[in-house]
Amino acid sequence: MIIYGKNVVKDYLENNKKIYSIKLANNFDDEEIFELIKKRNINVEKIDIKKINNIESGNHQGIIADVEEYSYIDINEIYDNINSNTLIVILDHIEDTHNFGAIIRTCEAAGVDYIVIPNDRAVKVNSTVIKTSAGSINNIKIAAVANINNVINKLKENGVWIAGTTLGNGEEYTQIDYNIPIAIVLGNEGKGISKLTGDLCDFLIKIPMYGKINSLNVSVATGIVIYEIIRQRKQVLNEQTRENI
Amino acid sequence: MIIYGKNVVKDYLENNKKIYSIKLANNFDDEEIFELIKKRNINVEKIDIKKINNIESGNHQGIIADVEEYSYIDINEIYDNINSNTLIVILDHIEDTHNFGAIIRTCEAAGVDYIVIPNDRAVKVNSTVIKTSAGSINNIKIAAVANINNVINKLKENGVWIAGTTLGNGEEYTQIDYNIPIAIVLGNEGKGISKLTGDLCDFLIKIPMYGKINSLNVSVATGIVIYEIIRQRKQVLNEQTRENI
Repeated sequence: MIIYGKNVVKDYLENNKKIYSIKLANNFDDEEIFELIKKRNINVEKIDIKKINNIESGNHQGIIADVEEYSYIDINEIYDNINSNTLIVILDHIEDTHNFGAIIRTCEAAGVDYIVIPNDRAVKVNSTVIKTSAGSINNIKIAAVANINNVINKLKENGVWIAGTTLGNGEEYTQIDYNIPIAIVLGNEGKGISKLTGDLCDFLIKIPMYGKINSLNVSVATGIVIYEIIRQRKQVLNEQTRENI
Repeated sequence: MIIYGKNVVKDYLENNKKIYSIKLANNFDDEEIFELIKKRNINVEKIDIKKINNIESGNHQGIIADVEEYSYIDINEIYDNINSNTLIVILDHIEDTHNFGAIIRTCEAAGVDYIVIPNDRAVKVNSTVIKTSAGSINNIKIAAVANINNVINKLKENGVWIAGTTLGNGEEYTQIDYNIPIAIVLGNEGKGISKLTGDLCDFLIKIPMYGKINSLNVSVATGIVIYEIIRQRKQVLNEQTRENI
């Protein structure tokens, strides 16, 4: 698999991920990356930047690497690690690479435990997703599964509550108490959450909107809901700390 | 100016914006748009989709239009309309068209009053920004100014508080009371808020992060902060309503 861009390759170097080879543009200059390469035994080739452009049309910043395929985690790892603070993001057929990358980046920053995506009819981890995730791909665990509805049922059996985001009827997202093990389901960019998946959710939540067009990018919506969960959990934690003083 | 994509052209048609001409791919088929075009006297041409690809490389969905240049508002309109609920977003040199488009979309949905951007060294409203804004461009007011620091000073003189977002030292964004006229400053993707602009802010706020990479896309960060402001303001409004019963 080809990855590209400084932050991404740096992340693979720092995390000791398998890197088969690195190609640098002749004028590439980044001391930190040179140092990281030196520490590992990697085949590095300097080539004309036009040749890199031919391999990768994205914003590669003069550096591309051939690395091992991305490894998804086994879904059972999720079932085995549920606790009272579990926070999972389930993507119901996201199609856009940039949205998926931005969601990965947000989940990493927010400390989300796991992301679950479907195997089919959805974007999976690829070069562009990794680039958009800004070097966060190796710090978050992602499971790719045959059927997200089966996963939702299994999570419910294991005590996880399921909140689906909707543009239709739903409770305002700030009105739910998130101090429970929870999985948030985000829907497809055009179609939202599928009917069947929505029916399986314990709550349907919506973000209030006050404009005329009233649509939020799915990665922005993910950030808003996740950070409300974090805000509430921190508030409860602070109250408990105060009570214990 | 060329605009493209169904939602965008529909928005221009619905808002009675000046449209010089529309080009449709031969197989273009959308009853709603055909109806909207019929109501207006616009020159429409059906052409081969390849010709459209030559004009616009973005995801045009078989429809492009030549429209009047985008009109920014006069900055004085902002100073003349400040009230206790004023909510302004100031962008300190955003460079990426997709980020700017996503921020416009979020601001429209959240009911932000105005966006302020600098004239130079920053992305301005263009075809891609309009496409990414998903048809929301004509429902939000944007001012482009020579110097955002002068605007910040003038807003402060007019009773608006200025909160700058930072990755460095700052108060957690949930700890500020936003029931005041406020402008939020979001910084450049790479460099953040400039030193001088940061010094002018009344508060510096940060979004807590719990990962290793810890970076949020600027459009996601904008959504998180704006929706916290909305949450707080609604809460106060609800409390006031209860008190009055």
